[in-house]
Amino acid sequence: MEKTTLEQFALDHLPQVQEYLTLPSVSAQNQGITETCAWLQQQFTDLGAQRVEQWTDQGGNPVLFVEFQGQSDRTVLFYNHYDVQPPEPLDEWKTPAFEPTIQDGRLIARGACDDKGELMCRLTVIKYFQDHGGLPCNLKFIIEGEEEIGSPHIAQYVTAHAADLKADVCIWEGGGKDENENFQIVCGAKGAVSFDLHVKTAAADLHSSLAVYADNAAWRLVQALASLKTPDNHIAVAGFYDDIRPLTAAEQAATQAMDFDEDKVRRNYDLQQPLITKDPKMELVNGTTLTINGLTAGYTGPGSKTIIPKEAHAKLDCRLVPNQDPHKIVHLIQQQLEHNGFGDVQVEYRLGEAAGRSNLEDPFIQMTKTIADQVYGAEQVKLIPNMPGAGPIKPFLDQLHTPIVLVGVRYAGSHPHSPNENIRLQDYQTGTYYLARVLATYGASHH
Amino acid sequence: MEKTTLEQFALDHLPQVQEYLTLPSVSAQNQGITETCAWLQQQFTDLGAQRVEQWTDQGGNPVLFVEFQGQSDRTVLFYNHYDVQPPEPLDEWKTPAFEPTIQDGRLIARGACDDKGELMCRLTVIKYFQDHGGLPCNLKFIIEGEEEIGSPHIAQYVTAHAADLKADVCIWEGGGKDENENFQIVCGAKGAVSFDLHVKTAAADLHSSLAVYADNAAWRLVQALASLKTPDNHIAVAGFYDDIRPLTAAEQAATQAMDFDEDKVRRNYDLQQPLITKDPKMELVNGTTLTINGLTAGYTGPGSKTIIPKEAHAKLDCRLVPNQDPHKIVHLIQQQLEHNGFGDVQVEYRLGEAAGRSNLEDPFIQMTKTIADQVYGAEQVKLIPNMPGAGPIKPFLDQLHTPIVLVGVRYAGSHPHSPNENIRLQDYQTGTYYLARVLATYGASHH
Repeated sequence: MEKTTLEQFALDHLPQVQEYLTLPSVSAQNQGITETCAWLQQQFTDLGAQRVEQWTDQGGNPVLFVEFQGQSDRTVLFYNHYDVQPPEPLDEWKTPAFEPTIQDGRLIARGACDDKGELMCRLTVIKYFQDHGGLPCNLKFIIEGEEEIGSPHIAQYVTAHAADLKADVCIWEGGGKDENENFQIVCGAKGAVSFDLHVKTAAADLHSSLAVYADNAAWRLVQALASLKTPDNHIAVAGFYDDIRPLTAAEQAATQAMDFDEDKVRRNYDLQQPLITKDPKMELVNGTTLTINGLTAGYTGPGSKTIIPKEAHAKLDCRLVPNQDPHKIVHLIQQQLEHNGFGDVQVEYRLGEAAGRSNLEDPFIQMTKTIADQVYGAEQVKLIPNMPGAGPIKPFLDQLHTPIVLVGVRYAGSHPHSPNENIRLQDYQTGTYYLARVLATYGASHH
Repeated sequence: MEKTTLEQFALDHLPQVQEYLTLPSVSAQNQGITETCAWLQQQFTDLGAQRVEQWTDQGGNPVLFVEFQGQSDRTVLFYNHYDVQPPEPLDEWKTPAFEPTIQDGRLIARGACDDKGELMCRLTVIKYFQDHGGLPCNLKFIIEGEEEIGSPHIAQYVTAHAADLKADVCIWEGGGKDENENFQIVCGAKGAVSFDLHVKTAAADLHSSLAVYADNAAWRLVQALASLKTPDNHIAVAGFYDDIRPLTAAEQAATQAMDFDEDKVRRNYDLQQPLITKDPKMELVNGTTLTINGLTAGYTGPGSKTIIPKEAHAKLDCRLVPNQDPHKIVHLIQQQLEHNGFGDVQVEYRLGEAAGRSNLEDPFIQMTKTIADQVYGAEQVKLIPNMPGAGPIKPFLDQLHTPIVLVGVRYAGSHPHSPNENIRLQDYQTGTYYLARVLATYGASHH
């Protein structure tokens, strides 16, 4: 298998990627879902898949399931999603979000990196194998349409369709290169849980001259929140850290081998405060958080309005590591608030998913690493125990018992979820070659 | 002087009050200012005032100055304002805000109590005296058009025109009856200072997976705020309470004689937390506050958005008592934030005015009390050292050295600043009689 051949093949099939990127499948706005799923279904049918099904039995947007038979008894399951983030703010796009544009070696469009470009890379590899003697192994795809709204139904689909999804290994979405151009082999995802806090102290906003005797919802919220964290950013919630497992030796070694350039990170985000940890690599892999996402209370317009807010609200999330349960974490926070004298603070659970991490020493994961070393150069390949972001990996690990690895075509400037989302064509081409190598090697190892 | 005569006279002259209330002089929206000031000027000219002048030399909306000569050498200065609060929210008005309506013995319109009805009560008394042998003393009026936006120019006008404003005593706007129908003689006002806090931690909102190492503007704001107050609502700012003077014996006696019905207050506002003080009467007179008026940071829309807010903002005010300086108070807060490790929290001073309180034992104030005892019944009259709200009293005290007293025609259901603002006609009528008695007695005591 020639690198240049695969890279040219990927370039030749870009028009299909661009066509996919014109479909505005914005799950948060319930836009283009049906059309996009139908379009994808047709692509897989055209590629000669044995099964192409839209699943709707567990509710939510349809899940596309696809199965190809290959030349070994091994099965690779791919997880992707066909929905994208809303394109807003539109005026920050240099080219229209749903008019894919190639410029300076980049393909720019909403979904270019997250996750349409990546899925089309996978289809291109299938097309290549179909044109050159057939697939080296069986392939399955589960492609959901609700990833950008928190995958509220995926766990149910995985449970209900565990037999359909049966596979030996799983390749996830979302991989690529870091700020230092290291190609990352990511072996898991953190969990996350989102919840709101609500405080109400009166029927209406009061004149602030009454603050001599009337309590203030904003002050109660501030004091309740402050009671959950020490000034040095330790989460002051009894039991919060109890379920966290220490890293294995392999995970520790991988973590220490990660790149983290503090100066670059500080410049990149224009951080105006010191980092809140002395060990950012360890925290990125096995650190938990309690983050205020938003605060609102009282008067927030121009000038002054001297009122006591009747109510105050905070949105928070926690990033979770393996073995932490989202519901338990929120329950512990609620208990701590009661213990701290803030039983009137109402806790509203929103969305949660647990963390999941594969065994770094799994032979398939080691194989993806070995091939990456050859394709990208060993000094530019990093094995990452898990990404700092969340993804619905846990139900797959629990139900399918496969190793899961994230490898893909993003780079540090891809801007997922932001205006001017893009991938570099060279990454797309090399990623196509890399994936073909992985599938060919995996199939060949199990004839 | 017959009570019934004056009360009937007040009723007969209601059409003039209603005409005044049709003028939408909303300073915050820069609406109707010129027309309203001109209309008032004409009313005073028609009443035979010796001087009627619009002052504009210190900037801002014109200040109307009026002078009448009377039959003694004593001069009473009235402070009023011709601007009103915005009428919004319009859909909560049962009758249109600027179409004064008489219903169930009430006169309903924006400005009915704050402060147009009260001013017209004063004009009615003048008219009565002019029709019945002349004014018992000299009268002056200073009527500003920026009270509802914080009186930003009044101190300058009082300083620049101290000679014009020279008087022996001053009657302020805003008096009336409390929840228990006590007629209040109020001898001062608290001060207030408004300021904002701003925190910025990054150039853009960050993905909350980075919260393992990146600081969070909302958390910094919460922790900065929490560091300024103890859980039992003591303001933890060094020097904050230092300039407060203890009450005099007369002030203490008046304070203890005040009415405060905790159950009624809790029901009235549907307070959901215990009162934050054990001595609300003392706090209403000589208590200071640090109130969060508003909070905003990050994502505040529906659902969840897992970000680290790049910035966070709070609006606050302090209620101040005599001898506290607004600028000094904000400076102390800024110093405390720096001391607490929050030097990055930017403090923005907005508006401030100092508190002012007259000597409760002043003969004029005692006289207003004696006459009130006769008109309203001694058991239903309360001498209040100062109101819990603020007003630009301090520059008058400093420049003119007169006692200042607030007596008027409001009641507890008047809803100033709110929809369905109103006064009761009976209060208006009795208030007219009361004021005539005060002026007649004051003039007679100084022939």
